[in-house]
Amino acid sequence: MTIAFAAQYLMPIEQEMRNIMFENLPDTAGFGVMLRYAMGWVDATDAPYDRITGKRLRPVLLLICNQAAGGDWKHALPAAASVEILHNFSLIHDDIQDNSFTRHGRPTVWKVWGEANAINAGDAMLVLAYNSIERLSKNYSDETVLQVWRYFNRTNLHLTRGQHMDMRFETQNNVTIDEYVSMIEGKSAALIAACAQIGAYLATEDTKVSEHYFNFGLNIGISFQIRDDVLGIWGDSAVTGKSTATDIISRKKSLPVLFALSRSEALRNIYAKADFGTRDVDDAIEILNELNARNFAYEQEMMYYERAMHYLLQASPSEEARQYIQAFVDFLFNREY
Amino acid sequence: MTIAFAAQYLMPIEQEMRNIMFENLPDTAGFGVMLRYAMGWVDATDAPYDRITGKRLRPVLLLICNQAAGGDWKHALPAAASVEILHNFSLIHDDIQDNSFTRHGRPTVWKVWGEANAINAGDAMLVLAYNSIERLSKNYSDETVLQVWRYFNRTNLHLTRGQHMDMRFETQNNVTIDEYVSMIEGKSAALIAACAQIGAYLATEDTKVSEHYFNFGLNIGISFQIRDDVLGIWGDSAVTGKSTATDIISRKKSLPVLFALSRSEALRNIYAKADFGTRDVDDAIEILNELNARNFAYEQEMMYYERAMHYLLQASPSEEARQYIQAFVDFLFNREY
Repeated sequence: MTIAFAAQYLMPIEQEMRNIMFENLPDTAGFGVMLRYAMGWVDATDAPYDRITGKRLRPVLLLICNQAAGGDWKHALPAAASVEILHNFSLIHDDIQDNSFTRHGRPTVWKVWGEANAINAGDAMLVLAYNSIERLSKNYSDETVLQVWRYFNRTNLHLTRGQHMDMRFETQNNVTIDEYVSMIEGKSAALIAACAQIGAYLATEDTKVSEHYFNFGLNIGISFQIRDDVLGIWGDSAVTGKSTATDIISRKKSLPVLFALSRSEALRNIYAKADFGTRDVDDAIEILNELNARNFAYEQEMMYYERAMHYLLQASPSEEARQYIQAFVDFLFNREY
Repeated sequence: MTIAFAAQYLMPIEQEMRNIMFENLPDTAGFGVMLRYAMGWVDATDAPYDRITGKRLRPVLLLICNQAAGGDWKHALPAAASVEILHNFSLIHDDIQDNSFTRHGRPTVWKVWGEANAINAGDAMLVLAYNSIERLSKNYSDETVLQVWRYFNRTNLHLTRGQHMDMRFETQNNVTIDEYVSMIEGKSAALIAACAQIGAYLATEDTKVSEHYFNFGLNIGISFQIRDDVLGIWGDSAVTGKSTATDIISRKKSLPVLFALSRSEALRNIYAKADFGTRDVDDAIEILNELNARNFAYEQEMMYYERAMHYLLQASPSEEARQYIQAFVDFLFNREY
């Protein structure tokens, strides 16, 4: 089963995001182009760009959960647009913070327009994500819109906290597994959780049901990130688009590495080296393999995955809806049958 | 007349802002301290800091306008806290963008914690400003809170657009007076306008009355910025804290300079020089004086000032309230009698 059914959402999501930008951002010369570029709609000269850049997974999840909980997904479009715009805000600022030169195969916003402009473009994008939620007023009561806004505020603070921990870990020794999970929870799972929660809330106006969806999303998000960590070391580059051991070469403190660092003096010594060669990468992977770090990570991935599925059952979507969500999750985890 | 009456607001504003941070920002090591530092509450080691850093003019204006329009200012405190937190968000990001080393006599956030952390601290501050508005729900209807939020969204986009123009002007030739006014409108007057508007709206729930307050604030903000431009060139350093001609030395394209640049080939040549010495500064000021640039700027300042007062009359506050607002404006313009 593929998730072809999700394709119906893609154009309307894109159209909604374009409307938001067009209506809220009177175009001052040289300003809007940065935002349109970040969204993948134009090149750096503001000419249309025709390759797909982002997968729009977050807004799709929001709309799937909205339908699963009995909503009319067309009404929820402004919220879907909002989470995707928010995601793109975080990418613009992330790329400055990580000193990344490319994103989706193109130069990052700060590489094209400089850091000062990229900071400001990101700020505008964050405000636009709020503007977008405002547009829910067309279809929902004031009370409902305010509640979505509250969820959104909580998510955004969580995001900045996760980002802070991620940056901090680069120079921190002895990052614990708990701290690590807390970081990925903020940095990536919180927004996925918010998508599920907001989608469900707009359908039901029931905070309890929405809370189950939130917990489903949070645990799926954590599980997915751990899977990404495994692929970053042992992944098949043909599937992941990343060369094997990428995360070892960059000395990223991902879950398998943290697990092994806490158990191996030898690995700690390798990671403490000023220079880090091919031989070190091989040695590091050998230690990880000896310690069964991949298996540890896989068990963690499955634990969070099963928690997610537990919460999904609690949310009691119809059997058909549950299958849709399952198909989306399978797609996300690249487990198409 | 002094504005001693505004002093009653200061402690409650500070307390409200502290509550917002305390309640919304579970303290991850090394995170909250950046925000508290930016607010002027602590030093870089998180120890209490006892000198006043910001003047809190914006929240005070919001509360004065709230009272002037018949409101209970204590209820409006979350909005007052929000505009001050927003202002501090913009300072954190501005200081990175302008490469400024000090603010209120202390190292800027990015100088202490690095750019990546400062970008993220600013983002968190912007989200907190939204969190703060959420707290109005204790005292106002959902409809009112949503309307304030809409005003706030509009203001924030305006801010990012003004910031963009400001950065763009540094490298743009032939900035017109209109473009310049449009820039300061976004970069500084829009937030002052929002303070007046939101304060009045929370008192009256009348968008028309609030619009008059908005226009009062917008024009006062523009007038104030132009006055600042004049002081940046001809100001008395004992009063302004800036040495005379500061804005000429930094070749800032302020209003008097733009006026003169459009009329003097000689000044354009001076400003196009790679090196810019004391002699050039003297020559530039001589040209500005010959062209009566100061007088031009003063006329503009007065034009916007009078427009502001016109809108204030339209808003019809009580005579007592009008006098309070006038006293605040006099204080702002450093015209204490």
